Amino acid sequence: MSNTPDTDNAVRAYVDGHRAAFLDELSAWLRIPSVSADPLRAADVRRSARWLRDHLAATGFPVAEIWDTPGAPAVFAEWPSGDPDALTVLVYGHHDVQPADRGDGWRTDPFEPVIENGRLYARGAADDKGQVLIHTLGLRAHLAATGRRAPAVNLKLLVEGEEESGSPHFPELLRSYAGRLACDIVIVSDTGMWSEDTPTVCTGMRGLVDCQIDLYGPDQDIHSGSFGGAVPNPATEAARLAAALHDADRRVAIPGFYDGVVELTERERELFAELPFDEADWLRTAHSRATLGEAGYSTLERIWARPTAEVNGIGGGYQGPGGKTVVPSAAQVKLSFRLVAGQEVEKIQLAVRDWAALLLPAGIRHEITFGGATRPCLTPLDHPALQSVVRAMGRAFGRKVRFTREGGSGPAADLQDVLGAPVLFLGISVPSDGWHAPNEKVELGLLMKGAETAAHLWCDLAENGR
Amino acid sequence: MSNTPDTDNAVRAYVDGHRAAFLDELSAWLRIPSVSADPLRAADVRRSARWLRDHLAATGFPVAEIWDTPGAPAVFAEWPSGDPDALTVLVYGHHDVQPADRGDGWRTDPFEPVIENGRLYARGAADDKGQVLIHTLGLRAHLAATGRRAPAVNLKLLVEGEEESGSPHFPELLRSYAGRLACDIVIVSDTGMWSEDTPTVCTGMRGLVDCQIDLYGPDQDIHSGSFGGAVPNPATEAARLAAALHDADRRVAIPGFYDGVVELTERERELFAELPFDEADWLRTAHSRATLGEAGYSTLERIWARPTAEVNGIGGGYQGPGGKTVVPSAAQVKLSFRLVAGQEVEKIQLAVRDWAALLLPAGIRHEITFGGATRPCLTPLDHPALQSVVRAMGRAFGRKVRFTREGGSGPAADLQDVLGAPVLFLGISVPSDGWHAPNEKVELGLLMKGAETAAHLWCDLAENGR
Repeated sequence: MSNTPDTDNAVRAYVDGHRAAFLDELSAWLRIPSVSADPLRAADVRRSARWLRDHLAATGFPVAEIWDTPGAPAVFAEWPSGDPDALTVLVYGHHDVQPADRGDGWRTDPFEPVIENGRLYARGAADDKGQVLIHTLGLRAHLAATGRRAPAVNLKLLVEGEEESGSPHFPELLRSYAGRLACDIVIVSDTGMWSEDTPTVCTGMRGLVDCQIDLYGPDQDIHSGSFGGAVPNPATEAARLAAALHDADRRVAIPGFYDGVVELTERERELFAELPFDEADWLRTAHSRATLGEAGYSTLERIWARPTAEVNGIGGGYQGPGGKTVVPSAAQVKLSFRLVAGQEVEKIQLAVRDWAALLLPAGIRHEITFGGATRPCLTPLDHPALQSVVRAMGRAFGRKVRFTREGGSGPAADLQDVLGAPVLFLGISVPSDGWHAPNEKVELGLLMKGAETAAHLWCDLAENGR
Repeated sequence: MSNTPDTDNAVRAYVDGHRAAFLDELSAWLRIPSVSADPLRAADVRRSARWLRDHLAATGFPVAEIWDTPGAPAVFAEWPSGDPDALTVLVYGHHDVQPADRGDGWRTDPFEPVIENGRLYARGAADDKGQVLIHTLGLRAHLAATGRRAPAVNLKLLVEGEEESGSPHFPELLRSYAGRLACDIVIVSDTGMWSEDTPTVCTGMRGLVDCQIDLYGPDQDIHSGSFGGAVPNPATEAARLAAALHDADRRVAIPGFYDGVVELTERERELFAELPFDEADWLRTAHSRATLGEAGYSTLERIWARPTAEVNGIGGGYQGPGGKTVVPSAAQVKLSFRLVAGQEVEKIQLAVRDWAALLLPAGIRHEITFGGATRPCLTPLDHPALQSVVRAMGRAFGRKVRFTREGGSGPAADLQDVLGAPVLFLGISVPSDGWHAPNEKVELGLLMKGAETAAHLWCDLAENGR
């Protein structure tokens, strides 16, 4: 009914006509450095939540609230359809961002958005503030194009503030507010698509376990000539630990790590192989010069469907200019593990704990601190709502929509588990956007297509979503 | 002749009587933060050289000069005996110190000397400013006790300014000034002795090769979910490199590393085993809780007579608070190797170069930067001058003098090679002095005994030294 060329044109006209105002709003939000990992930025994360609440209220949501947690606050908004039989959809995103420092290689201030050649550069532009705001622009377009006073579905938004810190309080938040969050479908907007030319819908995300292992040796740095070679060195042991993560085939060597892993089917491997993957292009996006990973798997299989272990940081001993011939007193490694369907967070944490304790020699004391963990998630391919997302995206992009998975992690599995609703993904970020990296950006053209997709989605879901 | 109880008493009286003035002078020198590894301290290292030159001139040396190098300056002084047949002795020490920062665990400012319970706390107190200054106090005592107007030997002092940076310009300095440095015997005062109760003479030092290996992967930090597990991670590779330094027996696993190593004789192993070594005491001095090292060797053998590899520092990726799920763009390791007689600096450097290049995967670029290197050194046990040192020390300490080796490194081998003179060691520092560590100190009682030893040494050498 609403799926007509006229509606498509009306949505496009609305989105294009409000582009400048939209970018002003997004830029204002991006100027708030809502880095959840940095305790010094806690006030900024709260400011970011207030900004979003006010923005949602101004958009017209009759309910727009800040939900406090023991960590950073989330934002909740709700706009009932008015139709008692309407489907209820919960949109998920996050308003916190990764750390960013000018010195890391940013060409511009990460918290002063710059528009250049059709791109908006700022920390959070793609991950995830840009992808949250396509929903308010999309909703306004939906209302304008259909003449409705309220959305075609009961629309709820939940935008959390600790996603970049592993969502430590998110499951508890979901449980506490399960009644108000009740929904038929969850739409997660915190993923990407294949490329500007190949719109795709993601069908799964990997899970995440991260930890810091602190190693302590001598009570203070000691002379490497007087004592070195005769006592354990925590920097050496940190290195041995990090090196022991992988075997010679680059498989993760932690005992039990692969227990329960859902292996790829031949059909899935074929679908992956059909995508227009160019390894040289991909390497450029990865700013890398060679691929390296688990033997026996393609690059796409490695990043989408295989669990991995990564050293995110390592440090110990003297790191200043010149040399210092010491056995250092302490070292640390920061590790993260991506999980796939079939792996359980608690079992992986236990396996890591046991592995580290077994490897470290007498005389090295250690502490493992686990950050927030995220479960892996897979969307059922045959769900009718998935077809609604594919159609809405196809109308906005005018191209065939294909399927991918996402190597990154989000709290999709928690949403699915606690709310008992299937999770679908609507993401318009592309791999070159530089998530977690310096000079993060978002393509303005894709932001607009994303808003159009969101505008089309609610009528399609209302008609076909169950 | 001069080896009499009267002389001993006169020396002791002089040293005791000038203790306060001596400590004031030493403290003034220790206040100059002459950290040669830190380019920002270059002016302080020059100031330290000027202080020493002025002090030597004030002591009476007719020649006291600063010798510039492409790096930090050395100080040279000379006081001819007046006797045309006199033996010529060159005393070696260094006036630069290791880096020290209050935040590293110092209880007091490392460059504001504090005297407490018979100990002087300051960076450089034992390594090596305290041990340099025992020679000026000792020389004054020698002159006072013997009534001489000039020392019994032609006395030369060479105090370099880059020892803590691996003495990069020292061999060239020795070659340039070989004529003025010509001598019959070298006395190195940059080592320690067994303990306050067990005076010892050191018969050898280990050599040193150090390097920094910088590893470069992605051009910038990249998202570990999007790219991790599919491209090489320089932090992982830095860890694999550092972990590959040792095999499961903690032997150094670099191919060719042990080539040419002079193995311990059974007699040497017996002499080591006779020393009053208490492992629990030693561990306390090492601020450590367990021993760990090359299988098949005792702790003393490991630190005195076996070559070792040590990770002095490692760093890469995110080291701030919380987590950051990135594949980092770069990492580095700082390694040092202690060498024993039979190993050659150039061959070890080549072996390290080849080893690193072979281990690192495609996609990781690396650079190795070697710091200054030091050759290993062994003193002939049967040299008559060694007996002079033993006698002088015995008179000052009133105890049997035993033999040790030194696990640390100094430019002793260069002195021996370039000047063609045997190298002997006179050191009064004890293991608990905390060389290169926070809260470095020197025992005031041992400083005084060291000055007495130096006062006795010149007459004994003049009579028996060749």
